[in-house]
Amino acid sequence: MDFEKKLNGYISSVNEFLKGCAAVSETAQKVLFEAMNYSLTAGGKRIRPVLTLSVCDMLGGDMKDALLFGCAIECIHTYSLIHDDLPCMDNDSLRRGRPTCHIAYGEANALLAGDGLLNTAFELMSDSSRYSSVDFEKAVNIIQIVSSASGKYGMIGGQVIDLESENKDDISADELINMHRLKTGAIIRAAALVGAVIGGADSVQTEKIIEFSENLGLAFQVKDDILDVLGSEELLGKPIGSDMESGKRTFVSVLGLEKSKETLKRLTEEAKKPLETFGERAEFLLEFTDYLTERQN
Amino acid sequence: MDFEKKLNGYISSVNEFLKGCAAVSETAQKVLFEAMNYSLTAGGKRIRPVLTLSVCDMLGGDMKDALLFGCAIECIHTYSLIHDDLPCMDNDSLRRGRPTCHIAYGEANALLAGDGLLNTAFELMSDSSRYSSVDFEKAVNIIQIVSSASGKYGMIGGQVIDLESENKDDISADELINMHRLKTGAIIRAAALVGAVIGGADSVQTEKIIEFSENLGLAFQVKDDILDVLGSEELLGKPIGSDMESGKRTFVSVLGLEKSKETLKRLTEEAKKPLETFGERAEFLLEFTDYLTERQN
Repeated sequence: MDFEKKLNGYISSVNEFLKGCAAVSETAQKVLFEAMNYSLTAGGKRIRPVLTLSVCDMLGGDMKDALLFGCAIECIHTYSLIHDDLPCMDNDSLRRGRPTCHIAYGEANALLAGDGLLNTAFELMSDSSRYSSVDFEKAVNIIQIVSSASGKYGMIGGQVIDLESENKDDISADELINMHRLKTGAIIRAAALVGAVIGGADSVQTEKIIEFSENLGLAFQVKDDILDVLGSEELLGKPIGSDMESGKRTFVSVLGLEKSKETLKRLTEEAKKPLETFGERAEFLLEFTDYLTERQN
Repeated sequence: MDFEKKLNGYISSVNEFLKGCAAVSETAQKVLFEAMNYSLTAGGKRIRPVLTLSVCDMLGGDMKDALLFGCAIECIHTYSLIHDDLPCMDNDSLRRGRPTCHIAYGEANALLAGDGLLNTAFELMSDSSRYSSVDFEKAVNIIQIVSSASGKYGMIGGQVIDLESENKDDISADELINMHRLKTGAIIRAAALVGAVIGGADSVQTEKIIEFSENLGLAFQVKDDILDVLGSEELLGKPIGSDMESGKRTFVSVLGLEKSKETLKRLTEEAKKPLETFGERAEFLLEFTDYLTERQN
């Protein structure tokens, strides 16, 4: 298997699909479509839809269905970045080397572009019967998985905990892990789980995929925090140490650099282990795990 | 029929249900639940869920189902108010006589409480199979109706057009109508339509209910604009003339007061007419239409 080729194939199909999700039309709200598109087509690693696609692929499921639901999840991820960057949140002016959405389109339009992308995810998923072979029961099941992962008990809950932690003198490793399980982990878990549902995983396979994705999500975050202190500004597209400087709690600030590296190694192994069940079919996911935990940006 | 009693009955059941939608739990993100609840339980006319309930009631549908989906729509309405009030949007500090969400909880929490409420709507609707008798096909259909009404081609689209209009020297009556059809009309239409779907309306009945709700939504907005210049500050819970002063285009500023009153009268009649099909069963909706178009706050 040529990993790079397969990965780029997934990413190309995602990028192609996303282009159509908020296609600019000559309406009175044209600027909304432009702002949504600006952020949606800004590139990025497309980790979430790649997970949905590759898990589904491993199980021999319908890739057209996986693409639709994976891209809906990417819309949710993108909205969360737009809102996170707003002045009242992280107040970031740079994202992936480009001006953030509110710098490019103004705060009000960025707020609404974020709302629009969250909403678009559900438009896509509920319109799935028109575009995919997923039956109604599965569609409702997937919408439930995604909405609970992105909501108050998932991603949004994690964002609030993150905000709260900035006002705290101290935060424990457990609190930090809980925050990341919600803030980034829940959606990564959902992306893999949706791939499992579309691929028709049985209950044992589903458990293994959940275990894999939960460890991968956390490993990804630990790597992010390590890169924040060790990475190259040019590669990261944002200033090095920007999380540390803004007073954000990171794995490095709580555990120290060496312990963070050890944790990353352990989580990577714990992500890969449950994939053994799938034998050779897990090849892409194993390489994808290394790719994410060894990345330089 | 005792209209007041029936209306208050609907409102009570809505208020009761909404209390549980973001019940405060002792988690690390407790403040999120508090902020969501603060806005969700701030009262208000509950027009949207009352529409869902009363249309379903008229058709003899399951009221428990109507309550769930109607309240999901109210979550969306509430999120839109929170985001509309933010400093980068209307910058309002008062809503229904109380401090707005961002005044009470800070901007970041208000932003996320809004996101959380939009998301909660889809959590509720996709979890409906657990709480209601709506089948999966109907659930997907309803989620599609609601998400398209609240999104870029509906409410959010209308909000952007509203923002754009503030920078324009002039706006035509048609542009104003288009803006309101999206900004407030689309969700009101969806609320009634969802009641029709749950109530099992046939295609003719569905058409009539759509016609009713589209005219009602517009009439409601015209009345709102008239109240903005003629109402009492105490009853409205916001300063009189605040829309006019902020440079917002209103029916009164575009058509003048007299023409706005005529338009209100015409739209009220056009809302009631399609209800003839339902004979005596439409009694509540007819009175509800008068109630909304003759209100003083």
